[in-house]
Amino acid sequence: MTQRKGQDETDVPELADVSEPPTPETERPALELPNPLGAEALKAFAHPLRIAMYRYLSAHGSGTASQIARALGESTGQTSYHLRQLERHGIIEDDPHAAPGGRERWWRPVGFSLDRRNMQEPGARLAIQTTLRAVIAERAETLQEWFDSIDDAAPWDDAALHTSSTSSLSLEEAEALEVELQEVLDRHTDAAKARKDAGDGLDRRRVRVYLDVFPLPVD
Amino acid sequence: MTQRKGQDETDVPELADVSEPPTPETERPALELPNPLGAEALKAFAHPLRIAMYRYLSAHGSGTASQIARALGESTGQTSYHLRQLERHGIIEDDPHAAPGGRERWWRPVGFSLDRRNMQEPGARLAIQTTLRAVIAERAETLQEWFDSIDDAAPWDDAALHTSSTSSLSLEEAEALEVELQEVLDRHTDAAKARKDAGDGLDRRRVRVYLDVFPLPVD
Repeated sequence: MTQRKGQDETDVPELADVSEPPTPETERPALELPNPLGAEALKAFAHPLRIAMYRYLSAHGSGTASQIARALGESTGQTSYHLRQLERHGIIEDDPHAAPGGRERWWRPVGFSLDRRNMQEPGARLAIQTTLRAVIAERAETLQEWFDSIDDAAPWDDAALHTSSTSSLSLEEAEALEVELQEVLDRHTDAAKARKDAGDGLDRRRVRVYLDVFPLPVD
Repeated sequence: MTQRKGQDETDVPELADVSEPPTPETERPALELPNPLGAEALKAFAHPLRIAMYRYLSAHGSGTASQIARALGESTGQTSYHLRQLERHGIIEDDPHAAPGGRERWWRPVGFSLDRRNMQEPGARLAIQTTLRAVIAERAETLQEWFDSIDDAAPWDDAALHTSSTSSLSLEEAEALEVELQEVLDRHTDAAKARKDAGDGLDRRRVRVYLDVFPLPVD
């Protein structure tokens, strides 16, 4: 697989309920929700092969229908069709960094978020549930793959972070924490991308970052 | 279940390989590894009931042998025995905030990290693998439980963050990102704890935070 110079992106999904517009009393630091998907886009996304293709593009930065077909054991006809469907709903897009003059289109994932306002529609509700299950499965598989390979990953085995913590937070404190975590992540990845684009020649790998902040069940 | 005023803590595990002491050329911003477990402690921890008890304490802040026995469907004799084993290895400790004069001991989890130096010993290697599988299962279950309950979680449904992102980073860039993410998390949770201890009376919930930064497989 050719590793190409790809755009770095948030590859999702980000889940948030934006159904309640903030009132003056409850205004809080807002998380920017990138590209909230509507009901139709959600239903188009919640298809096992499309989710798998999106995961491929997220892991690799970008790819062609042929590459994805090879990686997933599907025909190029199948992957081409589903890639066009994902494009139609704004979930993937042309990769402008692709080699010009190439015969195949290069695709890259577009970051998006889940807007729970769309859950009222029955099909969209099922689509969100399917997508959330895919999120959980993706984490488990990706973490397992990493843990299985960690012995051969030097010097990166020393550089991985996996923490789980629990704190008593108010809603406002949780949101302030999220805004700052997201800000730190964006700042570091933007700076790394700028350095890379400037040709600093550093040895880089595709690094996955998961950030989750959510309340535990109340007894 | 009585929700008590518990100490906030990092509840683990944090995985890091500290086998290579940094040389002057490769010195990097260091992540502080809390309470790295030795081989014996690891082997003591990698037991399904002990892991489940530790998860209970992490989710609730603290608890007694009776509470844990009720929650997990075990006898108090069993939970008392295993709690003492966990204490012996520094994985849990007495909760100093427990009601004085109570007849039962209150326990709280101690944050710890996995030190991959200890993987050379065969039993420890298996224990680390068991613990890592438990980490993955814990994430999947905890996220699924949250997603299943999200419709009834207002206003917290609006406050959860779940992001996955992928960027091209050098080893040094990844580590600098981790240090700053950890610093933000510590600063926010310490400040919230100080405000809570000062009696600000805010409505708070136990909030789980997962942070993962690790390289994706190379093709």
